[in-house]
Amino acid sequence: MSKRRTGQVTVLAGGVGAARLLRGLAPLVRASELSVIVNTADDDTFFGLEVSPDVDTVLYTLAGLADPIRGWGIAGDSFHALRALERFHGHAWFQIGDQDLATHLFRTERLARGDSLSTVTAAQARALGVAPRVLPMTDDRVRTIIDTTGGRRSFQEYLVRDRARETVRAISYAGARRSRPAPGVLAAIEDASLLVVAPSNPLVSIGPILAVPGIRAALRRAGAPVVAVSPLIGGRAVKGPGDKMMRALGRAPNPLSIAECYADFLDAMVIDTADRSFAPRLAACGLSVTSLDTLMRSQVRATAVARAVLDLGSTTDRRRTLAV
Amino acid sequence: MSKRRTGQVTVLAGGVGAARLLRGLAPLVRASELSVIVNTADDDTFFGLEVSPDVDTVLYTLAGLADPIRGWGIAGDSFHALRALERFHGHAWFQIGDQDLATHLFRTERLARGDSLSTVTAAQARALGVAPRVLPMTDDRVRTIIDTTGGRRSFQEYLVRDRARETVRAISYAGARRSRPAPGVLAAIEDASLLVVAPSNPLVSIGPILAVPGIRAALRRAGAPVVAVSPLIGGRAVKGPGDKMMRALGRAPNPLSIAECYADFLDAMVIDTADRSFAPRLAACGLSVTSLDTLMRSQVRATAVARAVLDLGSTTDRRRTLAV
Repeated sequence: MSKRRTGQVTVLAGGVGAARLLRGLAPLVRASELSVIVNTADDDTFFGLEVSPDVDTVLYTLAGLADPIRGWGIAGDSFHALRALERFHGHAWFQIGDQDLATHLFRTERLARGDSLSTVTAAQARALGVAPRVLPMTDDRVRTIIDTTGGRRSFQEYLVRDRARETVRAISYAGARRSRPAPGVLAAIEDASLLVVAPSNPLVSIGPILAVPGIRAALRRAGAPVVAVSPLIGGRAVKGPGDKMMRALGRAPNPLSIAECYADFLDAMVIDTADRSFAPRLAACGLSVTSLDTLMRSQVRATAVARAVLDLGSTTDRRRTLAV
Repeated sequence: MSKRRTGQVTVLAGGVGAARLLRGLAPLVRASELSVIVNTADDDTFFGLEVSPDVDTVLYTLAGLADPIRGWGIAGDSFHALRALERFHGHAWFQIGDQDLATHLFRTERLARGDSLSTVTAAQARALGVAPRVLPMTDDRVRTIIDTTGGRRSFQEYLVRDRARETVRAISYAGARRSRPAPGVLAAIEDASLLVVAPSNPLVSIGPILAVPGIRAALRRAGAPVVAVSPLIGGRAVKGPGDKMMRALGRAPNPLSIAECYADFLDAMVIDTADRSFAPRLAACGLSVTSLDTLMRSQVRATAVARAVLDLGSTTDRRRTLAV
């Protein structure tokens, strides 16, 4: 696939949805011109290991190692260490494959030595042959807390252990207020020719990134157009509990609600054909809109969505405010 | 196999040689009457993981998980995590299997939380269904340092990384002087009806145990006879560089030199038939001696050696001093 002259493309990314879009973008954008700012508020510690699920998903995707079906971990990975850990710990609700474990071991050791998450992530990207820049949103500790009817949960407890069965009452990003963008994050926004918000959960994937002081302001100030890909198809999140969370927090799960989350910096939106009835209202808010099949179940579909993002970005002017 | 009435049997153990003897002893001695005091001076940190090679070998052996051919690790273990670690670290000279990794992860996490090595080891023994008491010699940090013609090496660097090719000039046990026996160690010696020195390297496996202040004195004071199994067969160590190290340090690799290492507390010795010419001189030093085929290449042979140890122990009187 021939690469476009896109200039710097910077993507705000969560996990699975972002990974699918990146599968489409990576072949189209020169690696040296692609930067990914990744949510780290899902990070957690398991068995003493520092796990960064979204960073790992992005790294594995760009390295061609990801399991595209499962949405996490390394394709074909085995689980011998985890089964052996269960001898000591009992049932493990968080799955870590044997190869995946190596990623966490390396990270844990380097963080313990005092290296920053962004330094470690850059080293991991190099080791895995990932040329685009993968930037954790912050080197500081930010954690998404899900306040449910059953109590306060870490994000992984809510999503993985409790399978998102509990009703969400509130979401907060502990530590966000005192956090700073990781080195390179603000520059990746300021220097971009195109800014992309991946089809990730706006509340728990993109929300934490925007909660790091300075990032939202940089997006508002940026000279490049900002294109978001809606993570919803016909009122449902493609993967994960995004729609359910939105409803629980009083937001209709549709592209308008997504646009509202990004209202102060968004210029354009890619939505699914199932949601094209929302296009006029999005346009009325001043947004450029493209609709197509956004279910990226194959490389071909991912490429089509990525093309739509690049096309929309190249024809959209930068606006400053929205009337959502 | 019917268990004997042995009373408490306490074994001083290194790695492979001790594991082979324990394979023979475990079916003969009631689990509640078997204690193993294990060398921890070979412990090291790899990939941020706290590895206790001799403790693991003893645990795996008593759990029936050990790889009896290789002498370390878990039988049938895979190495997927290690291969993945090599993406980040380059070639790994210390091999850790996927299941083995779980043991180190559990230990590392618990030690980091402030638990002692003996507490963690007891928890691991329980989890693995190991009923005999496995006691690290100390909860303090003691490390065997091998001073070679090429420089100072940790034990694992000397043995595994450099394959024991360098000539040994001196051996020391860093930290030993300030270390204390782990809880239960002195009692296991004092309360024993039989004390066994496993066929382990006297310089780097049993030596460090004896260097923990209080242990050697307890062995001297103990009321039970002390039986050592020679780790040599016809001047050669069955496994590892013991013979080479002994020669390098000016000691002939024969049962007399082994007896010398334990002269102040030894009562009896099991030697290989290949070394039976040494029996009269050992007897002249006041030792009871049995010779048989000590190469424990099968369960049958391990049982035969274990029986010889128990028999010799039951017919040997406790002496206080030797004339070696």
